Amino acid sequence: MPTPAFGSAAGIALQATQSDAFSAIQDDVLLSSSLWVNIALAGVSILLFVYMGRNIEAGRARLIWGATLMIPLVSISSYVGLLSGLTVGFIEMPAGHALAGEEVMSQWGRYLTWALSTPMILLALGKLADVDDGSLFTVIAADVGMCVTGLAAALVTSSLAVRWAFYVISCAFFLVVLYALLTEWPVAAAEAGTDDIFGTLRVLTVVLWLGYPIIWALGVEGLAVVQSVGVTSWGYSALDVLAKYVFAFLLLRWVAANERTVATPSGQAAGGASPADD
Amino acid sequence: MPTPAFGSAAGIALQATQSDAFSAIQDDVLLSSSLWVNIALAGVSILLFVYMGRNIEAGRARLIWGATLMIPLVSISSYVGLLSGLTVGFIEMPAGHALAGEEVMSQWGRYLTWALSTPMILLALGKLADVDDGSLFTVIAADVGMCVTGLAAALVTSSLAVRWAFYVISCAFFLVVLYALLTEWPVAAAEAGTDDIFGTLRVLTVVLWLGYPIIWALGVEGLAVVQSVGVTSWGYSALDVLAKYVFAFLLLRWVAANERTVATPSGQAAGGASPADD
Amino acid sequence: MPTPAFGSAAGIALQATQSDAFSAIQDDVLLSSSLWVNIALAGVSILLFVYMGRNIEAGRARLIWGATLMIPLVSISSYVGLLSGLTVGFIEMPAGHALAGEEVMSQWGRYLTWALSTPMILLALGKLADVDDGSLFTVIAADVGMCVTGLAAALVTSSLAVRWAFYVISCAFFLVVLYALLTEWPVAAAEAGTDDIFGTLRVLTVVLWLGYPIIWALGVEGLAVVQSVGVTSWGYSALDVLAKYVFAFLLLRWVAANERTVATPSGQAAGGASPADD
Repeated sequence: MPTPAFGSAAGIALQATQSDAFSAIQDDVLLSSSLWVNIALAGVSILLFVYMGRNIEAGRARLIWGATLMIPLVSISSYVGLLSGLTVGFIEMPAGHALAGEEVMSQWGRYLTWALSTPMILLALGKLADVDDGSLFTVIAADVGMCVTGLAAALVTSSLAVRWAFYVISCAFFLVVLYALLTEWPVAAAEAGTDDIFGTLRVLTVVLWLGYPIIWALGVEGLAVVQSVGVTSWGYSALDVLAKYVFAFLLLRWVAANERTVATPSGQAAGGASPADD
Repeated sequence: MPTPAFGSAAGIALQATQSDAFSAIQDDVLLSSSLWVNIALAGVSILLFVYMGRNIEAGRARLIWGATLMIPLVSISSYVGLLSGLTVGFIEMPAGHALAGEEVMSQWGRYLTWALSTPMILLALGKLADVDDGSLFTVIAADVGMCVTGLAAALVTSSLAVRWAFYVISCAFFLVVLYALLTEWPVAAAEAGTDDIFGTLRVLTVVLWLGYPIIWALGVEGLAVVQSVGVTSWGYSALDVLAKYVFAFLLLRWVAANERTVATPSGQAAGGASPADD
Repeated sequence: MPTPAFGSAAGIALQATQSDAFSAIQDDVLLSSSLWVNIALAGVSILLFVYMGRNIEAGRARLIWGATLMIPLVSISSYVGLLSGLTVGFIEMPAGHALAGEEVMSQWGRYLTWALSTPMILLALGKLADVDDGSLFTVIAADVGMCVTGLAAALVTSSLAVRWAFYVISCAFFLVVLYALLTEWPVAAAEAGTDDIFGTLRVLTVVLWLGYPIIWALGVEGLAVVQSVGVTSWGYSALDVLAKYVFAFLLLRWVAANERTVATPSGQAAGGASPADD
């Protein structure tokens, strides 16, 4: 029967992992700079986006602004969590892995917080294209599935095959998202009269989002072609800068300048199908 | 003050639980077959459903197809997680339990992933019946509450009374879901002209979903009338086959054959209330 | 390489923390009474709300009733979780904290379950004001962000600065929620003809919700001006009684008496913009 002292010991031990990770990150300039650059840019983005959206008043435009503002807010939370060591762990890679038996630092918090930030990106894109709520819900559900199975892939230590099985499943969820972005949503954007900016942001999103599974496959958690945790972390961080802050900036600049186009209530597109002035 | 070595030890220990569970499942044919059969059937379902939905074009019909496709995708993720040992734990049952003091394998990942898969079932049913978004949101929230408190019931080891308290609370959330399925949604389905297939799927869902709390009550985590983890696992797995893949197949076959009925935009039912051709 | 026995030991140790917390709460009358009073009031509220809503039939009114009923259901789950010790931990405060080096009981489950209960409050308020779904989604996302970063603030043990960084980020998410409650939603409520009751509930919500970060800052997890876990817990519990059950009771009483006002389908406000009787 476990004694109270033993229970407390386990609690202390888990907190020690957090402190270990905190110290390890502090001591690694490459690694810690990959986190700090995002904290700084996310902070600047929050202030900038509040300023840029100060005059937006119309319903759907304000909503896009709100969703866009959430992107750096979630991102700064994610990076502070990584920096503190709270959402970082040391994973012993399974047999067959290039780093088998070694303890590798896993920034598993990235996958967890993507489950909250990427839906905001999709919400902003979906509202820009004025897609119907059901389509938005399904795509966001697939997106959350992609992030959660990515988290599972990072945390499995019992079997190399299962790690890659989760990788494949995560990519299958990604295909559902890609399918919507490439085939359904452009049609809605054309009807809503926002196809120009939607086309730009869609290309940015599709190209950059493809980078994440590539980094996973090449980095320390996958094939370990790149064996540096710092370089892998910089890979993700650079993608985040482009796919989150630059994406959000371009979107918000367009919305602020074209408020009228997205000012109509959802479902009543400016250049839409209804011929009558109802 | 904990040393770094102690922190790493805790991390390794937690990963050892995962490897223990992985090995224990591999060594138990009854148990592992209950997982593999679902991985196989979910995989077949994904391919089949993509094929069945290839010609669906109309908005609401495509949405139902998307939600339906998510069901086996979430399910395969869940079962790979169980098989890897990642979402499985060894729970020491509290005093008063039939297996008190023994370590029982708990497949707690089932409850966690149901929180993502069952909303997709309700989304597909709700969109089929063309219920309003608010009703859908409330029912899905109750459904998530049901799954999360089911997870809590499985994880509590401090008190037998609290385990059953969570069981009762989880059933209370279930009653909210049942209430909507039995009284509100059939009315919406009749208005949407989908009451035929909705009636079939509703009976299937209500009857099968009632099976889950019964298995919990009789299985190793509840009264332990059935003391085999493998038999308990097969109970859940068999219900999942019927409530997920068979359910989704029936729904998708009907949608593919009756696309026109669910082709109208949400809120404008084909045989609905509005007399004018707007 | 860890042995199976070591893995099991870690599992047992984690469960010991749960049993420790369970015993510690049982032995502290002030602390346990702060939990039991909410379990009792939430239970009474569930029965009362089911009774109060028995005759509500109109669509949006039923939805508000459903969301309102979820509030005590989630709350009772939360408090049973705290009482069982499942969602309670012992946190060793970092250097610089008033209780540095001491183990402080953290009721981290509160922050986790607020992520499910507060969206229901916002859903009920939003539907009462008849705001559009997109605005509701963004505000609920900010609210979930507020709760999750609050959870992170409670769990960080590696650095005092990071604890307060998460506190500030959580408050930034809160500002997004406050902004909507104070500027956007009142306009929608006025259009929907529900500004009277919305005004009352908004003041109640804004004032009470401001209490939570104040308690955090003053209590054991923040500046530790109040060093008693029991008093801190009573602070949260008293706020929960007012912000959840009293709030829900006032809302539900009004909806039951004014069903006609919220009977119109979402988007077609009673005293709304459309001049024609469509």
